[in-house]
Amino acid sequence: MTHPLLDRHRATLDGALSAIATRGYWTPYPEQASPKFYGEGASEVRRQAVQAMFGQRFDLGQPGVGGWLAGDRSPYGVDLAVQYAVCDPEALIAAAMAAMPAWQKLGVDGRAGVCLEILDRLNKASFEIAWAVMYTTGQGFGMAFQAGGPHAQDRGLEAVAYAYREMSFVPREAHWEKPQGKNPPLVMKKNFEVVGRGPALVIGCSTFPTWNTYPGLFAALATGNPVIVKPHPWSVLPAAISVRIAREVLRENGIDPNLVTLAVVDRPETTQKLATDPRIASIDYTGGSAFGSWLLQNARGKQVYAELSGVNNVVIESTDNYKGMLRNLAFTLSLYSGQMCTTTKALLVPAGGIDTDQGHKSFDEVAADLGAAIDKFLSDPATATAVLGAIQSPDTLKRIEQAPQAATVVLASRKLDHPEFPKAEIRTPVVLKADASNEAAYMQERFGPISTVVAVPGGADALAALSERIVREHGALTVGVYSTDASFIDAMTAATQRAGVALSINLTSGVFVNQSAGFSDFHGTGANPAANASYTDSAFVASRFRVIQRRQHV
Amino acid sequence: MTHPLLDRHRATLDGALSAIATRGYWTPYPEQASPKFYGEGASEVRRQAVQAMFGQRFDLGQPGVGGWLAGDRSPYGVDLAVQYAVCDPEALIAAAMAAMPAWQKLGVDGRAGVCLEILDRLNKASFEIAWAVMYTTGQGFGMAFQAGGPHAQDRGLEAVAYAYREMSFVPREAHWEKPQGKNPPLVMKKNFEVVGRGPALVIGCSTFPTWNTYPGLFAALATGNPVIVKPHPWSVLPAAISVRIAREVLRENGIDPNLVTLAVVDRPETTQKLATDPRIASIDYTGGSAFGSWLLQNARGKQVYAELSGVNNVVIESTDNYKGMLRNLAFTLSLYSGQMCTTTKALLVPAGGIDTDQGHKSFDEVAADLGAAIDKFLSDPATATAVLGAIQSPDTLKRIEQAPQAATVVLASRKLDHPEFPKAEIRTPVVLKADASNEAAYMQERFGPISTVVAVPGGADALAALSERIVREHGALTVGVYSTDASFIDAMTAATQRAGVALSINLTSGVFVNQSAGFSDFHGTGANPAANASYTDSAFVASRFRVIQRRQHV
Repeated sequence: MTHPLLDRHRATLDGALSAIATRGYWTPYPEQASPKFYGEGASEVRRQAVQAMFGQRFDLGQPGVGGWLAGDRSPYGVDLAVQYAVCDPEALIAAAMAAMPAWQKLGVDGRAGVCLEILDRLNKASFEIAWAVMYTTGQGFGMAFQAGGPHAQDRGLEAVAYAYREMSFVPREAHWEKPQGKNPPLVMKKNFEVVGRGPALVIGCSTFPTWNTYPGLFAALATGNPVIVKPHPWSVLPAAISVRIAREVLRENGIDPNLVTLAVVDRPETTQKLATDPRIASIDYTGGSAFGSWLLQNARGKQVYAELSGVNNVVIESTDNYKGMLRNLAFTLSLYSGQMCTTTKALLVPAGGIDTDQGHKSFDEVAADLGAAIDKFLSDPATATAVLGAIQSPDTLKRIEQAPQAATVVLASRKLDHPEFPKAEIRTPVVLKADASNEAAYMQERFGPISTVVAVPGGADALAALSERIVREHGALTVGVYSTDASFIDAMTAATQRAGVALSINLTSGVFVNQSAGFSDFHGTGANPAANASYTDSAFVASRFRVIQRRQHV
Repeated sequence: MTHPLLDRHRATLDGALSAIATRGYWTPYPEQASPKFYGEGASEVRRQAVQAMFGQRFDLGQPGVGGWLAGDRSPYGVDLAVQYAVCDPEALIAAAMAAMPAWQKLGVDGRAGVCLEILDRLNKASFEIAWAVMYTTGQGFGMAFQAGGPHAQDRGLEAVAYAYREMSFVPREAHWEKPQGKNPPLVMKKNFEVVGRGPALVIGCSTFPTWNTYPGLFAALATGNPVIVKPHPWSVLPAAISVRIAREVLRENGIDPNLVTLAVVDRPETTQKLATDPRIASIDYTGGSAFGSWLLQNARGKQVYAELSGVNNVVIESTDNYKGMLRNLAFTLSLYSGQMCTTTKALLVPAGGIDTDQGHKSFDEVAADLGAAIDKFLSDPATATAVLGAIQSPDTLKRIEQAPQAATVVLASRKLDHPEFPKAEIRTPVVLKADASNEAAYMQERFGPISTVVAVPGGADALAALSERIVREHGALTVGVYSTDASFIDAMTAATQRAGVALSINLTSGVFVNQSAGFSDFHGTGANPAANASYTDSAFVASRFRVIQRRQHV
């Protein structure tokens, strides 16, 4: 019952299955953008290949083409003008439905094999995808390569592994023999078929068009469902390249390529129409809470996996490595200008200050030192532009501009120039400080490079309680804690388990609270308002398929 | 990390884990109501124990008691008058919340051990539960024992096994070591905690107060959640006995018994209040589609596992065992007077009749022969009362009365007397026949002993298509097919896989389309309108818990 593509990639699947069981470090996709792994000169060749797409039609050969749309927006000020077909949603759904039966018939092994082949080809195209991610999202190249390429592929593979494991538990056939005392036993043969639930809609975000798309794409695909990828209108290219690769692999293997399509839409109503169509069985969504709430309200009866906004926070109770802590936080707050769903928004510090290896530091000193650490870290322009990237959205630019109205400015944002992209919108982070009572200052997500150091009166208990309340009420994907007091770390462990959020403890070196490692860290928990699902656990895949049985006497 | 109760029941858990992997025949709970398994004289002793409860307070020692209510209704006309505490929903939820942290701390093994001990004690109380089920539901004693006792325990154990397997995949601890080229690796220790989502509400039905309650109860409990059991107001006693046993086991093991409580309500608004309380994280529901739809609309953001109504159908295309088929269907339509969510409602027969081992039978002959088979099967009064049981609800009595208005009567319902219970409401099944075009006659669930033989014009394709449409539009838990034509069975297999319903093929002996065997048959698929979940698969348990991690450098 095995499939040649599964045979080819068996070692990768086995590695992934072992990794999700132990959740240690593992990856088959090297994160180094090195010729050693990706070929001599690949970066430049692939960059030119991406540039050659500019101004051209990106034709996927999909059905129902009604027009062409060029919506990509580059925070680096590059004019992409890649034109994508706007396809009739009805045509895409009908094509997905038509492609589904053969995909189901391919079986668990066949589908896994095809998914693994697609991932392998995505990996080989990492440079191409990296350039597309960089141009459209404003990420620095290093991050665009890692997060947009190998790390996104990790998450896709993780989803395939979870899906494969869950589906493998369903025996294809069972022999049922029930004793009947002295009479002959009742004997039945039973067959169990894993059946997808129907076309999946995967709605991407503008900042991580592959990392946040691959988990839903591959989870849905592996479990037997066609997938319609609906990228953010400003970051289409990385999704378009990914869908093209998927369709190529499908076509080469005699499978209807319309199993995976790209939905580029020219108005929001089209997305709503797709999301509420009764044939769409599941929706994966990453983005703002406004549309997320609309989805959860209106897409009833569908499985919705939603990652929304939140207020990630770090609690600073004390530290034995003050400089290491500040360096670590400075990087976290700077990386991709805080345009990550995992970036810290509020830093909770005792109003009376903290004990450190550098002596006691008052609240104001902690806030000022954090500002200074960021300033120092970004003092080298090459580092600054590489780490910060560019500001993705005009809304974020506006938020940066308006941030000083919310509280006292500790560190003001500066506009930087990019040596290569004169029109790039680059901003350094703004850091504010506020009293805990000024909740308007910090108890909302200000997406972008905006964070607030919050003075919390009332001792350690109050710190933990405030952190917990923020997570419960506003959601969070990440919480961090700095403390030399084991009992306080225990209290934060309990608080984060109650509130349902992952905790990073005393990060002072090369791991950052806003980074989650594929196969090891669960991204999101599904237990607080920031996300109703996690990348990737059993719950992320188990409801995407159903088991249909038949039974008959032998 | 193991737990003494898990050690005690390890063989049972291992057996269940092996059974869900192979889904062959297995059970640790003998279905024979025999002294060999359940003790000499146990039946009579337990019957008296149950009778001794009549007219008394059934005091569980729960918090928030505001009054006492005796709502059980016996279809056998027995006056139970057992009084249950009506507890303030707020008190029950607060008590559940208070009991949760210690239950979580007990860990995966401890919780599984406690669940297995509860199941073992439920098994030992099978006679007591059987009598309570018989008195309240109207089932015959044999069925009340099997379905209310061991078979219900099977489903509870199955849920524990699935929950245990899913939770066991989450490592408690991980060592993460990421190479950094020539620099020392990044090394982290990660801990993963399985955390329940919050109090579960398990809403039972009047006809199967244990069989349909145990899966949700044990799935929620094993995954770390407190459970509030809300039985149907007419069938409280079996749930009350079950909850009492659970609370005893909890108390004996130093666990807050309010982890499992019974919610007896004196008005529907209380159930709605419970269901919409933001602290309630999940709802298991079995019952009518009206309240089920209300739940799915109003309990947003909660996990809802709902089993609703449907129109189960059997397609009769041809048979090589006409008598065996009729005997099998006669039993199915008679068992518990069709008051099962799995009972066949529509029998689809070619308008031109069918080929059989007894020659060609016209449509009218098939319908008449089915009526005659039921009549013959129920001709012995002792068999009839034992198999039929009593009619549970006045609504069902009304439906039986009104059924002849819907179509042509093939077999009229008769009222039977019960030798032991003079007030018992016993009715034989009514069988109707109608043309396929008369959809009002058969395209709705008429809960109870009412079925319609439908004359379908247009050949085999039309048969399969009509069956598929009924399932898609109205839902079904079961579909059966009789055919000697392998290609038609293939067509029905494809149709039921598309529509998402289990198929039973050519049942002519001791297995019936309305029976599903624990550990082997999936009950419901979650893929059609009759149920959004299945007993029991990975999806039934995977979303009931979340994984909360913490990580720190070593």
